[in-house]
Amino acid sequence: MRKRSLTARFVSFAHGDGARYGLVVDGGVVDLSARYGAQWPTLQHVLADRAFAALAEKGGALAPDLSLEGLRYEIPSLVPEKIICVGVNFPDRNAEYKDGQEAPPNPSLFPRFLRSFTAHGRPLVRPPESVQLDYEGEIAIVIGKAGRRIAERDALDHIAALTLSNEGTIRDWVRHAKFNVTQGKNFDRSGSLGPWLVPFTGEAQIGDIALETRVNGEVRQSDRTSRMIFSFRKIISYISTFTTLVPGDILITGTPTGAGARFDPPIWLKPGDVVEVEAEGIGLLRNTIADEA
Amino acid sequence: MRKRSLTARFVSFAHGDGARYGLVVDGGVVDLSARYGAQWPTLQHVLADRAFAALAEKGGALAPDLSLEGLRYEIPSLVPEKIICVGVNFPDRNAEYKDGQEAPPNPSLFPRFLRSFTAHGRPLVRPPESVQLDYEGEIAIVIGKAGRRIAERDALDHIAALTLSNEGTIRDWVRHAKFNVTQGKNFDRSGSLGPWLVPFTGEAQIGDIALETRVNGEVRQSDRTSRMIFSFRKIISYISTFTTLVPGDILITGTPTGAGARFDPPIWLKPGDVVEVEAEGIGLLRNTIADEA
Repeated sequence: MRKRSLTARFVSFAHGDGARYGLVVDGGVVDLSARYGAQWPTLQHVLADRAFAALAEKGGALAPDLSLEGLRYEIPSLVPEKIICVGVNFPDRNAEYKDGQEAPPNPSLFPRFLRSFTAHGRPLVRPPESVQLDYEGEIAIVIGKAGRRIAERDALDHIAALTLSNEGTIRDWVRHAKFNVTQGKNFDRSGSLGPWLVPFTGEAQIGDIALETRVNGEVRQSDRTSRMIFSFRKIISYISTFTTLVPGDILITGTPTGAGARFDPPIWLKPGDVVEVEAEGIGLLRNTIADEA
Repeated sequence: MRKRSLTARFVSFAHGDGARYGLVVDGGVVDLSARYGAQWPTLQHVLADRAFAALAEKGGALAPDLSLEGLRYEIPSLVPEKIICVGVNFPDRNAEYKDGQEAPPNPSLFPRFLRSFTAHGRPLVRPPESVQLDYEGEIAIVIGKAGRRIAERDALDHIAALTLSNEGTIRDWVRHAKFNVTQGKNFDRSGSLGPWLVPFTGEAQIGDIALETRVNGEVRQSDRTSRMIFSFRKIISYISTFTTLVPGDILITGTPTGAGARFDPPIWLKPGDVVEVEAEGIGLLRNTIADEA
Protein backbone atom coordinates (compact mmCIF):
# COMPACT_ATOMS: atom_id res chain seq x y z
CA MET A 1 0.00 0.00 0.00
CA ARG A 2 1.25 3.46 -0.89
CA LYS A 3 2.12 5.47 2.18
CA ARG A 4 0.90 8.97 2.65
CA SER A 5 2.28 11.35 5.19
CA LEU A 6 0.00 11.08 8.16
CA THR A 7 -1.76 14.10 9.50
CA ALA A 8 -2.20 14.47 13.25
CA ARG A 9 -3.09 11.29 15.14
CA PHE A 10 -4.91 11.46 18.48
CA VAL A 11 -4.64 8.28 20.50
CA SER A 12 -6.40 7.10 23.65
CA PHE A 13 -4.45 4.83 25.97
CA ALA A 14 -4.47 3.28 29.43
CA HIS A 15 -1.92 4.71 31.81
CA GLY A 16 -1.85 4.05 35.50
CA ASP A 17 -4.80 5.90 36.87
CA GLY A 18 -7.04 5.49 33.86
CA ALA A 19 -7.64 6.45 30.26
CA ARG A 20 -5.69 9.29 28.72
CA TYR A 21 -5.21 10.72 25.27
CA GLY A 22 -2.23 12.08 23.43
CA LEU A 23 -0.73 13.08 20.13
CA VAL A 24 1.44 10.64 18.18
CA VAL A 25 4.70 12.34 17.18
CA ASP A 26 8.10 11.13 15.97
CA GLY A 27 9.40 8.76 18.58
CA GLY A 28 6.26 8.35 20.66
CA VAL A 29 3.25 9.97 22.24
CA VAL A 30 2.82 13.40 23.79
CA ASP A 31 0.55 12.99 26.80
CA LEU A 32 -2.10 15.65 26.19
CA SER A 33 -4.29 14.57 29.11
CA ALA A 34 -1.51 15.49 31.54
CA ARG A 35 -1.42 19.01 30.09
CA TYR A 36 -4.95 19.73 28.88
CA GLY A 37 -7.10 17.14 30.65
CA ALA A 38 -8.75 19.73 32.88
CA GLN A 39 -10.00 21.69 29.88
CA TRP A 40 -10.69 18.68 27.65
CA PRO A 41 -11.10 15.50 29.73
CA THR A 42 -11.63 13.23 26.69
CA LEU A 43 -11.35 13.29 22.91
CA GLN A 44 -15.12 13.83 22.89
CA HIS A 45 -14.49 17.19 24.55
CA VAL A 46 -11.69 18.02 22.10
CA LEU A 47 -14.00 17.16 19.22
CA ALA A 48 -16.98 19.09 20.59
CA ASP A 49 -14.73 22.12 21.07
CA ARG A 50 -13.16 21.72 17.60
CA ALA A 51 -9.78 21.82 19.28
CA PHE A 52 -7.97 19.20 17.16
CA ALA A 53 -5.95 21.72 15.17
CA ALA A 54 -4.93 23.77 18.19
CA LEU A 55 -3.90 20.67 20.14
CA ALA A 56 -2.00 19.23 17.19
CA GLU A 57 0.01 22.41 17.02
CA LYS A 58 0.66 22.57 20.76
CA GLY A 59 1.49 18.87 21.03
CA GLY A 60 3.57 18.81 17.86
CA ALA A 61 6.06 21.19 19.42
CA LEU A 62 6.74 18.88 22.36
CA ALA A 63 8.96 15.86 22.91
CA PRO A 64 7.17 12.53 23.41
CA ASP A 65 6.40 11.39 26.94
CA LEU A 66 5.79 7.73 26.12
CA SER A 67 6.93 5.21 23.57
CA LEU A 68 4.44 3.74 21.12
CA GLU A 69 5.99 0.36 21.95
CA GLY A 70 3.99 -1.21 24.71
CA LEU A 71 1.31 1.48 24.65
CA ARG A 72 -2.00 0.01 25.82
CA TYR A 73 -4.41 1.47 23.31
CA GLU A 74 -7.98 2.29 24.21
CA ILE A 75 -10.86 2.92 21.84
CA PRO A 76 -10.71 6.68 21.05
CA SER A 77 -12.44 8.33 24.02
CA LEU A 78 -15.57 9.47 22.25
CA VAL A 79 -19.09 9.21 23.58
CA PRO A 80 -20.96 8.19 20.45
CA GLU A 81 -24.68 8.61 20.85
CA LYS A 82 -24.92 6.11 18.02
CA ILE A 83 -22.73 3.93 15.85
CA ILE A 84 -24.29 3.11 12.47
CA CYS A 85 -22.76 0.70 9.97
CA VAL A 86 -23.36 0.47 6.23
CA GLY A 87 -24.04 -3.12 5.22
CA VAL A 88 -23.14 -3.58 1.58
CA ASN A 89 -21.07 -0.85 -0.02
CA PHE A 90 -18.42 -2.20 -2.41
CA PRO A 91 -18.70 -3.88 -5.83
CA ASP A 92 -19.04 -7.68 -5.69
CA ARG A 93 -20.05 -7.42 -2.08
CA ASN A 94 -23.70 -7.21 -3.10
CA ALA A 95 -23.18 -10.33 -5.23
CA GLU A 96 -21.78 -12.16 -2.19
CA TYR A 97 -25.28 -12.26 -0.79
CA LYS A 98 -26.26 -14.50 -3.71
CA ASP A 99 -29.91 -13.68 -3.28
CA GLY A 100 -30.46 -12.62 -6.87
CA GLN A 101 -31.45 -9.12 -5.85
CA GLU A 102 -30.23 -6.04 -7.60
CA ALA A 103 -28.34 -3.53 -5.52
CA PRO A 104 -30.95 -1.38 -3.78
CA PRO A 105 -31.13 2.38 -4.16
CA ASN A 106 -30.36 2.98 -0.48
CA PRO A 107 -27.72 1.67 1.91
CA SER A 108 -28.53 -1.09 4.37
CA LEU A 109 -27.84 0.13 7.88
CA PHE A 110 -27.47 -1.46 11.27
CA PRO A 111 -26.34 -0.12 14.63
CA ARG A 112 -23.56 -1.51 16.75
CA PHE A 113 -23.07 -0.82 20.43
CA LEU A 114 -19.72 0.55 21.58
CA ARG A 115 -19.17 -2.52 23.72
CA SER A 116 -19.08 -4.68 20.58
CA PHE A 117 -15.64 -3.17 19.89
CA THR A 118 -12.21 -3.41 21.42
CA ALA A 119 -9.11 -1.24 20.86
CA HIS A 120 -6.09 -1.61 18.61
CA GLY A 121 -3.72 -4.26 19.92
CA ARG A 122 -6.28 -5.90 22.16
CA PRO A 123 -7.77 -9.34 21.55
CA LEU A 124 -10.72 -9.63 19.23
CA VAL A 125 -12.95 -12.07 21.07
CA ARG A 126 -14.41 -15.27 19.63
CA PRO A 127 -17.34 -16.22 21.86
CA PRO A 128 -18.07 -19.81 22.89
CA GLU A 129 -21.38 -19.68 21.01
CA SER A 130 -19.85 -19.83 17.53
CA VAL A 131 -16.70 -20.49 15.50
CA GLN A 132 -17.91 -18.21 12.71
CA LEU A 133 -15.99 -15.06 13.65
CA ASP A 134 -15.28 -13.06 10.48
CA TYR A 135 -13.46 -9.81 9.68
CA GLU A 136 -14.66 -6.75 7.79
CA GLY A 137 -12.17 -3.93 7.33
CA GLU A 138 -13.80 -0.50 7.11
CA ILE A 139 -13.26 3.23 7.33
CA ALA A 140 -15.13 4.98 10.14
CA ILE A 141 -16.06 8.63 10.11
CA VAL A 142 -16.68 10.60 13.28
CA ILE A 143 -19.27 13.34 13.19
CA GLY A 144 -18.18 16.74 14.48
CA LYS A 145 -21.14 18.95 13.68
CA ALA A 146 -24.78 18.18 14.35
CA GLY A 147 -27.28 18.07 11.53
CA ARG A 148 -30.52 16.69 10.17
CA ARG A 149 -31.33 16.29 6.47
CA ILE A 150 -27.83 17.30 5.53
CA ALA A 151 -27.44 17.95 1.80
CA GLU A 152 -24.79 15.89 0.04
CA ARG A 153 -22.94 19.06 -0.94
CA ASP A 154 -22.58 20.00 2.75
CA ALA A 155 -22.04 16.51 4.12
CA LEU A 156 -18.25 16.52 4.47
CA ASP A 157 -18.42 19.62 6.67
CA HIS A 158 -19.96 17.36 9.31
CA ILE A 159 -16.94 15.05 9.56
CA ALA A 160 -14.50 15.79 12.39
CA ALA A 161 -12.19 12.80 12.22
CA LEU A 162 -11.47 9.41 10.69
CA THR A 163 -10.57 6.06 12.15
CA LEU A 164 -10.68 2.38 11.18
CA SER A 165 -12.88 -0.51 12.16
CA ASN A 166 -12.65 -4.24 11.99
CA GLU A 167 -16.38 -4.69 11.90
CA GLY A 168 -16.07 -8.23 13.23
CA THR A 169 -19.11 -10.41 12.74
CA ILE A 170 -20.46 -13.70 14.07
CA ARG A 171 -21.87 -14.95 10.78
CA ASP A 172 -24.35 -17.58 11.94
CA TRP A 173 -25.82 -15.13 14.45
CA VAL A 174 -26.44 -12.60 11.67
CA ARG A 175 -29.18 -14.92 10.41
CA HIS A 176 -30.26 -16.20 13.79
CA ALA A 177 -33.77 -14.81 13.55
CA LYS A 178 -36.33 -13.80 10.98
CA PHE A 179 -34.67 -10.54 10.03
CA ASN A 180 -32.00 -8.09 11.17
CA VAL A 181 -28.33 -8.62 11.85
CA THR A 182 -28.28 -7.14 15.35
CA GLN A 183 -27.10 -10.24 17.17
CA GLY A 184 -24.22 -11.26 14.92
CA LYS A 185 -22.95 -7.69 14.80
CA ASN A 186 -23.00 -7.03 18.52
CA PHE A 187 -21.12 -9.69 20.41
CA ASP A 188 -19.03 -7.93 23.04
CA ARG A 189 -15.52 -7.10 21.74
CA SER A 190 -16.06 -8.96 18.47
CA GLY A 191 -14.90 -5.92 16.48
CA SER A 192 -12.36 -3.15 16.89
CA LEU A 193 -12.05 0.62 16.47
CA GLY A 194 -8.83 2.57 16.14
CA PRO A 195 -5.92 2.84 16.37
CA TRP A 196 -6.45 6.60 16.68
CA LEU A 197 -8.41 9.56 15.39
CA VAL A 198 -7.09 11.44 12.38
CA PRO A 199 -8.65 14.90 12.09
CA PHE A 200 -10.52 15.31 8.83
CA THR A 201 -8.93 17.82 6.47
CA GLY A 202 -10.89 17.51 3.25
CA GLU A 203 -12.25 15.31 0.49
CA ALA A 204 -8.80 14.44 -0.89
CA GLN A 205 -8.12 12.60 2.35
CA ILE A 206 -10.85 10.01 1.71
CA GLY A 207 -12.06 10.34 -1.88
CA ASP A 208 -9.81 7.71 -3.44
CA ILE A 209 -7.71 5.84 -0.89
CA ALA A 210 -6.78 2.18 -0.60
CA LEU A 211 -8.47 0.07 2.08
CA GLU A 212 -6.99 -3.34 2.79
CA THR A 213 -7.54 -6.20 5.22
CA ARG A 214 -4.91 -8.84 5.86
CA VAL A 215 -5.12 -12.05 7.88
CA ASN A 216 -1.74 -13.37 9.03
CA GLY A 217 -0.18 -11.18 6.36
CA GLU A 218 -2.33 -12.47 3.48
CA VAL A 219 -4.39 -9.83 1.68
CA ARG A 220 -8.08 -10.75 1.92
CA GLN A 221 -9.82 -7.48 1.14
CA SER A 222 -8.44 -4.69 -1.03
CA ASP A 223 -10.31 -1.89 -2.73
CA ARG A 224 -10.45 1.86 -3.06
CA THR A 225 -12.97 4.27 -1.59
CA SER A 226 -13.63 5.75 -5.03
CA ARG A 227 -15.45 2.49 -5.79
CA MET A 228 -17.87 2.69 -2.89
CA ILE A 229 -21.47 2.20 -4.01
CA PHE A 230 -22.68 4.85 -1.57
CA SER A 231 -20.26 7.74 -1.13
CA PHE A 232 -19.37 9.31 2.21
CA ARG A 233 -21.56 12.25 1.17
CA LYS A 234 -24.52 9.98 0.41
CA ILE A 235 -24.15 8.04 3.65
CA ILE A 236 -24.18 11.17 5.79
CA SER A 237 -27.02 12.73 3.86
CA TYR A 238 -29.14 9.57 3.87
CA ILE A 239 -28.70 8.70 7.55
CA SER A 240 -29.41 12.27 8.58
CA THR A 241 -32.73 12.07 6.77
CA PHE A 242 -34.20 10.05 9.61
CA THR A 243 -31.97 10.77 12.61
CA THR A 244 -30.14 13.86 13.81
CA LEU A 245 -26.40 13.28 13.68
CA VAL A 246 -24.51 14.70 16.66
CA PRO A 247 -20.82 15.17 17.51
CA GLY A 248 -19.21 11.86 18.44
CA ASP A 249 -21.50 9.73 16.30
CA ILE A 250 -19.58 7.12 14.33
CA LEU A 251 -20.53 5.95 10.83
CA ILE A 252 -18.80 2.79 9.63
CA THR A 253 -18.88 2.92 5.90
CA GLY A 254 -18.77 -0.61 4.50
CA THR A 255 -16.26 -3.33 3.66
CA PRO A 256 -14.72 -4.53 0.37
CA THR A 257 -15.40 -8.00 -0.97
CA GLY A 258 -13.34 -10.84 0.50
CA ALA A 259 -14.67 -11.61 3.95
CA GLY A 260 -14.01 -15.14 5.22
CA ALA A 261 -17.64 -16.07 4.59
CA ARG A 262 -17.15 -15.83 0.82
CA PHE A 263 -14.59 -18.62 0.61
CA ASP A 264 -15.81 -22.13 -0.18
CA PRO A 265 -15.63 -23.54 2.39
CA PRO A 266 -15.67 -20.39 4.53
CA ILE A 267 -12.50 -19.52 6.43
CA TRP A 268 -13.30 -18.34 9.92
CA LEU A 269 -10.92 -16.52 12.21
CA LYS A 270 -9.36 -18.69 14.91
CA PRO A 271 -7.36 -17.93 18.05
CA GLY A 272 -3.90 -16.58 17.24
CA ASP A 273 -4.86 -15.16 13.84
CA VAL A 274 -3.72 -11.58 13.32
CA VAL A 275 -6.05 -9.26 11.42
CA GLU A 276 -4.83 -5.95 10.06
CA VAL A 277 -7.04 -3.26 8.58
CA GLU A 278 -5.12 -0.49 6.84
CA ALA A 279 -6.14 2.62 4.94
CA GLU A 280 -3.87 5.19 3.35
CA GLY A 281 -3.41 8.24 5.52
CA ILE A 282 -5.50 6.85 8.36
CA GLY A 283 -3.42 4.09 9.85
CA LEU A 284 -3.26 0.39 10.62
CA LEU A 285 -5.59 -1.37 13.05
CA ARG A 286 -4.25 -4.72 14.28
CA ASN A 287 -5.89 -7.33 16.49
CA THR A 288 -5.15 -10.90 17.41
CA ILE A 289 -8.02 -13.33 17.81
CA ALA A 290 -8.56 -14.92 21.21
CA ASP A 291 -11.19 -17.20 22.61
CA GLU A 292 -13.28 -15.57 25.26
CA ALA A 293 -11.67 -16.06 28.67
CA MET B 1 -59.41 -3.19 30.37
CA ARG B 2 -59.41 -4.43 33.93
CA LYS B 3 -57.80 -1.97 36.27
CA ARG B 4 -55.19 -3.03 38.74
CA SER B 5 -54.03 -0.92 41.58
CA LEU B 6 -50.92 0.79 40.38
CA THR B 7 -47.67 0.41 42.25
CA ALA B 8 -45.35 3.39 42.55
CA ARG B 9 -45.02 5.57 39.44
CA PHE B 10 -41.92 7.68 38.87
CA VAL B 11 -42.42 10.42 36.33
CA SER B 12 -40.00 12.79 34.61
CA PHE B 13 -41.27 16.23 33.68
CA ALA B 14 -40.19 19.67 32.49
CA HIS B 15 -40.41 22.38 35.11
CA GLY B 16 -38.89 25.82 34.76
CA ASP B 17 -35.18 25.29 34.94
CA GLY B 18 -35.13 21.85 33.37
CA ALA B 19 -36.06 18.21 33.74
CA ARG B 20 -37.18 16.89 37.09
CA TYR B 21 -38.66 13.68 38.40
CA GLY B 22 -41.30 12.91 40.93
CA LEU B 23 -43.68 10.38 42.40
CA VAL B 24 -47.28 10.22 41.23
CA VAL B 25 -49.62 10.23 44.23
CA ASP B 26 -53.32 10.89 44.78
CA GLY B 27 -54.00 14.35 43.47
CA GLY B 28 -50.73 14.98 41.70
CA VAL B 29 -46.98 14.69 41.73
CA VAL B 30 -44.51 14.94 44.58
CA ASP B 31 -41.42 16.73 43.26
CA LEU B 32 -38.60 14.40 44.28
CA SER B 33 -35.92 16.35 42.39
CA ALA B 34 -36.52 19.33 44.66
CA ARG B 35 -35.87 17.14 47.70
CA TYR B 36 -33.45 14.44 46.55
CA GLY B 37 -31.97 15.82 43.32
CA ALA B 38 -28.55 16.36 44.88
CA GLN B 39 -28.27 12.71 45.83
CA TRP B 40 -30.04 11.31 42.76
CA PRO B 41 -30.00 13.84 39.89
CA THR B 42 -31.99 11.61 37.50
CA LEU B 43 -34.03 8.42 37.51
CA GLN B 44 -30.90 6.70 36.14
CA HIS B 45 -29.23 7.48 39.46
CA VAL B 46 -32.25 6.25 41.42
CA LEU B 47 -32.21 3.04 39.43
CA ALA B 48 -28.46 2.51 39.71
CA ASP B 49 -28.75 3.00 43.46
CA ARG B 50 -31.81 0.73 43.71
CA ALA B 51 -33.56 3.54 45.55
CA PHE B 52 -37.05 3.16 44.04
CA ALA B 53 -38.56 1.54 47.13
CA ALA B 54 -37.03 4.01 49.55
CA LEU B 55 -38.13 6.99 47.44
CA ALA B 56 -41.62 5.57 46.98
CA GLU B 57 -41.97 5.38 50.73
CA LYS B 58 -40.59 8.86 51.36
CA GLY B 59 -42.59 10.44 48.55
CA GLY B 60 -45.78 8.55 49.37
CA ALA B 61 -45.96 10.28 52.73
CA LEU B 62 -45.99 13.75 51.19
CA ALA B 63 -48.66 15.96 49.67
CA PRO B 64 -48.38 16.59 45.93
CA ASP B 65 -46.52 19.69 44.73
CA LEU B 66 -47.93 19.73 41.21
CA SER B 67 -51.09 18.67 39.44
CA LEU B 68 -50.96 15.91 36.82
CA GLU B 69 -53.12 18.22 34.69
CA GLY B 70 -50.88 20.25 32.48
CA LEU B 71 -47.74 18.37 33.51
CA ARG B 72 -45.19 18.44 30.68
CA TYR B 73 -43.98 14.87 30.65
CA GLU B 74 -40.45 13.97 29.66
CA ILE B 75 -39.15 10.55 28.68
CA PRO B 76 -38.12 8.90 31.99
CA SER B 77 -34.67 10.32 32.74
CA LEU B 78 -32.66 7.19 32.12
CA VAL B 79 -29.39 6.99 30.22
CA PRO B 80 -29.89 3.78 28.27
CA GLU B 81 -26.65 2.50 26.82
CA LYS B 82 -28.87 0.63 24.39
CA ILE B 83 -32.50 0.23 23.45
CA ILE B 84 -33.28 -3.11 21.81
CA CYS B 85 -36.66 -4.00 20.35
CA VAL B 86 -38.13 -7.43 19.66
CA GLY B 87 -39.56 -7.61 16.16
CA VAL B 88 -42.23 -10.29 16.02
CA ASN B 89 -43.49 -11.58 19.33
CA PHE B 90 -47.24 -12.23 19.33
CA PRO B 91 -49.37 -14.83 17.55
CA ASP B 92 -50.63 -13.80 14.09
CA ARG B 93 -47.96 -11.13 13.99
CA ASN B 94 -45.57 -13.56 12.34
CA ALA B 95 -48.25 -14.34 9.77
CA GLU B 96 -48.60 -10.61 9.03
CA TYR B 97 -45.25 -10.76 7.32
CA LYS B 98 -46.82 -13.07 4.71
CA ASP B 99 -43.47 -14.41 3.65
CA GLY B 100 -44.38 -18.05 4.13
CA GLN B 101 -41.71 -18.56 6.73
CA GLU B 102 -42.24 -20.43 9.94
CA ALA B 103 -41.65 -18.56 13.17
CA PRO B 104 -37.91 -18.71 13.86
CA PRO B 105 -36.42 -20.16 17.02
CA ASN B 106 -34.96 -16.82 18.09
CA PRO B 107 -36.38 -13.31 18.37
CA SER B 108 -35.67 -10.74 15.69
CA LEU B 109 -34.00 -7.73 17.27
CA PHE B 110 -33.28 -4.19 16.23
CA PRO B 111 -31.95 -1.17 18.11
CA ARG B 112 -33.63 2.20 18.36
CA PHE B 113 -31.93 5.41 19.38
CA LEU B 114 -33.39 7.39 22.26
CA ARG B 115 -34.04 10.33 19.96
CA SER B 116 -36.50 8.23 17.99
CA PHE B 117 -38.89 8.61 20.93
CA THR B 118 -40.88 11.39 22.48
CA ALA B 119 -42.65 11.57 25.84
CA HIS B 120 -46.25 10.93 26.90
CA GLY B 121 -48.50 13.78 25.84
CA ARG B 122 -46.10 15.16 23.25
CA PRO B 123 -46.64 14.97 19.50
CA LEU B 124 -45.63 11.82 17.68
CA VAL B 125 -44.00 13.20 14.56
CA ARG B 126 -44.88 12.24 11.00
CA PRO B 127 -41.89 13.24 8.84
CA PRO B 128 -42.29 14.83 5.40
CA GLU B 129 -40.59 11.83 3.81
CA SER B 130 -43.54 9.46 4.27
CA VAL B 131 -47.23 9.16 5.13
CA GLN B 132 -46.74 5.59 6.38
CA LEU B 133 -46.49 6.32 10.11
CA ASP B 134 -47.77 3.29 12.02
CA TYR B 135 -48.23 2.44 15.71
CA GLU B 136 -46.99 -0.56 17.71
CA GLY B 137 -48.01 -0.72 21.36
CA GLU B 138 -45.46 -2.51 23.53
CA ILE B 139 -44.26 -3.13 27.07
CA ALA B 140 -40.74 -1.94 27.80
CA ILE B 141 -38.56 -3.35 30.54
CA VAL B 142 -35.74 -1.39 32.12
CA ILE B 143 -32.65 -3.29 33.22
CA GLY B 144 -31.50 -2.66 36.78
CA LYS B 145 -28.69 -5.16 37.22
CA ALA B 146 -25.86 -5.84 34.81
CA GLY B 147 -25.37 -9.30 33.34
CA ARG B 148 -24.09 -11.42 30.50
CA ARG B 149 -25.42 -14.85 29.56
CA ILE B 150 -28.19 -14.52 32.11
CA ALA B 151 -30.04 -17.79 32.70
CA GLU B 152 -33.79 -17.68 32.10
CA ARG B 153 -34.43 -18.64 35.71
CA ASP B 154 -32.50 -15.56 36.90
CA ALA B 155 -33.67 -13.18 34.17
CA LEU B 156 -36.40 -11.34 36.04
CA ASP B 157 -33.96 -10.35 38.79
CA HIS B 158 -32.38 -8.04 36.20
CA ILE B 159 -35.53 -5.97 35.66
CA ALA B 160 -35.73 -2.73 37.64
CA ALA B 161 -38.81 -1.10 36.16
CA LEU B 162 -41.50 -1.19 33.48
CA THR B 163 -42.85 1.38 31.09
CA LEU B 164 -44.72 1.49 27.78
CA SER B 165 -43.73 2.26 24.23
CA ASN B 166 -45.49 3.23 21.09
CA GLU B 167 -42.83 1.76 18.87
CA GLY B 168 -43.87 4.03 15.99
CA THR B 169 -42.64 2.98 12.58
CA ILE B 170 -42.28 4.50 9.12
CA ARG B 171 -43.31 1.42 7.18
CA ASP B 172 -41.89 2.14 3.74
CA TRP B 173 -38.54 3.05 5.28
CA VAL B 174 -38.38 -0.32 7.04
CA ARG B 175 -37.83 -1.87 3.60
CA HIS B 176 -35.85 0.98 2.15
CA ALA B 177 -32.70 -1.05 1.63
CA LYS B 178 -31.58 -4.62 1.13
CA PHE B 179 -32.03 -5.67 4.73
CA ASN B 180 -32.52 -4.26 8.23
CA VAL B 181 -35.22 -2.03 9.58
CA THR B 182 -32.94 0.62 11.09
CA GLN B 183 -34.22 3.54 9.05
CA GLY B 184 -37.96 3.03 9.46
CA LYS B 185 -37.56 2.45 13.18
CA ASN B 186 -35.44 5.49 13.91
CA PHE B 187 -37.04 8.64 12.61
CA ASP B 188 -36.65 11.29 15.29
CA ARG B 189 -39.67 11.36 17.67
CA SER B 190 -41.60 8.80 15.63
CA GLY B 191 -42.25 6.70 18.73
CA SER B 192 -42.89 7.32 22.42
CA LEU B 193 -41.79 6.04 25.82
CA GLY B 194 -43.63 6.51 29.09
CA PRO B 195 -45.68 7.81 30.75
CA TRP B 196 -43.57 6.83 33.77
CA LEU B 197 -41.50 4.08 35.34
CA VAL B 198 -43.23 1.50 37.48
CA PRO B 199 -40.75 -0.37 39.71
CA PHE B 200 -40.74 -4.08 38.99
CA THR B 201 -42.10 -6.18 41.83
CA GLY B 202 -42.29 -9.70 40.44
CA GLU B 203 -43.49 -12.02 37.73
CA ALA B 204 -47.18 -11.60 38.59
CA GLN B 205 -46.87 -7.98 37.48
CA ILE B 206 -46.12 -8.93 33.86
CA GLY B 207 -46.80 -12.63 33.39
CA ASP B 208 -50.37 -12.35 32.13
CA ILE B 209 -51.50 -8.77 31.66
CA ALA B 210 -53.54 -7.13 28.93
CA LEU B 211 -51.81 -4.88 26.40
CA GLU B 212 -53.98 -2.72 24.18
CA THR B 213 -53.52 -0.03 21.54
CA ARG B 214 -56.34 2.33 20.55
CA VAL B 215 -56.49 4.88 17.76
CA ASN B 216 -59.05 7.62 18.32
CA GLY B 217 -60.67 5.32 20.86
CA GLU B 218 -60.96 2.30 18.55
CA VAL B 219 -59.17 -0.84 19.74
CA ARG B 220 -56.60 -1.88 17.15
CA GLN B 221 -54.30 -4.16 19.11
CA SER B 222 -55.28 -6.28 22.10
CA ASP B 223 -53.53 -9.28 23.54
CA ARG B 224 -52.05 -10.66 26.73
CA THR B 225 -48.41 -11.07 27.68
CA SER B 226 -48.99 -14.74 28.46
CA ARG B 227 -49.29 -15.27 24.69
CA MET B 228 -45.91 -13.78 23.83
CA ILE B 229 -43.88 -16.07 21.57
CA PHE B 230 -40.68 -15.16 23.42
CA SER B 231 -41.18 -14.61 27.16
CA PHE B 232 -39.60 -11.79 29.12
CA ARG B 233 -37.22 -14.38 30.56
CA LYS B 234 -36.23 -15.63 27.12
CA ILE B 235 -35.71 -12.11 25.75
CA ILE B 236 -33.36 -11.12 28.57
CA SER B 237 -31.48 -14.39 28.45
CA TYR B 238 -31.12 -14.37 24.66
CA ILE B 239 -30.01 -10.74 24.29
CA SER B 240 -27.50 -11.11 27.11
CA THR B 241 -25.90 -13.99 25.21
CA PHE B 242 -24.21 -11.54 22.86
CA THR B 243 -24.18 -8.23 24.75
CA THR B 244 -23.75 -7.30 28.39
CA LEU B 245 -26.92 -5.74 29.70
CA VAL B 246 -26.35 -2.76 32.01
CA PRO B 247 -28.61 -0.66 34.26
CA GLY B 248 -30.73 1.72 32.21
CA ASP B 249 -30.88 -0.48 29.12
CA ILE B 250 -34.39 -0.70 27.71
CA LEU B 251 -35.84 -3.80 26.06
CA ILE B 252 -39.05 -3.27 24.07
CA THR B 253 -40.76 -6.59 23.96
CA GLY B 254 -42.97 -6.78 20.90
CA THR B 255 -46.41 -5.74 19.70
CA PRO B 256 -49.69 -7.64 19.24
CA THR B 257 -51.23 -8.11 15.83
CA GLY B 258 -53.25 -5.22 14.44
CA ALA B 259 -50.85 -2.54 13.27
CA GLY B 260 -52.19 -0.21 10.60
CA ALA B 261 -50.07 -1.94 7.97
CA ARG B 262 -52.18 -5.10 8.25
CA PHE B 263 -55.39 -3.47 7.05
CA ASP B 264 -56.27 -3.68 3.37
CA PRO B 265 -55.71 -0.99 2.33
CA PRO B 266 -53.36 -0.01 5.16
CA ILE B 267 -54.53 2.70 7.56
CA TRP B 268 -51.71 5.08 8.37
CA LEU B 269 -51.71 7.54 11.23
CA LYS B 270 -52.46 11.12 10.26
CA PRO B 271 -52.16 14.45 12.04
CA GLY B 272 -54.67 14.78 14.86
CA ASP B 273 -55.03 11.05 15.47
CA VAL B 274 -54.71 10.06 19.11
CA VAL B 275 -52.91 6.81 19.90
CA GLU B 276 -53.16 5.21 23.32
CA VAL B 277 -51.09 2.27 24.51
CA GLU B 278 -52.29 0.78 27.77
CA ALA B 279 -51.16 -2.14 29.90
CA GLU B 280 -52.64 -3.33 33.17
CA GLY B 281 -50.71 -2.11 36.15
CA ILE B 282 -48.26 -0.09 34.07
CA GLY B 283 -50.28 2.81 32.75
CA LEU B 284 -51.53 4.57 29.65
CA LEU B 285 -49.26 6.23 27.10
CA ARG B 286 -51.02 8.78 24.89
CA ASN B 287 -49.76 10.77 21.91
CA THR B 288 -51.32 12.86 19.21
CA ILE B 289 -49.90 12.71 15.71
CA ALA B 290 -48.47 15.89 14.22
CA ASP B 291 -46.68 16.67 11.03
CA GLU B 292 -43.10 17.67 11.56
CA ALA B 293 -42.89 21.41 12.07
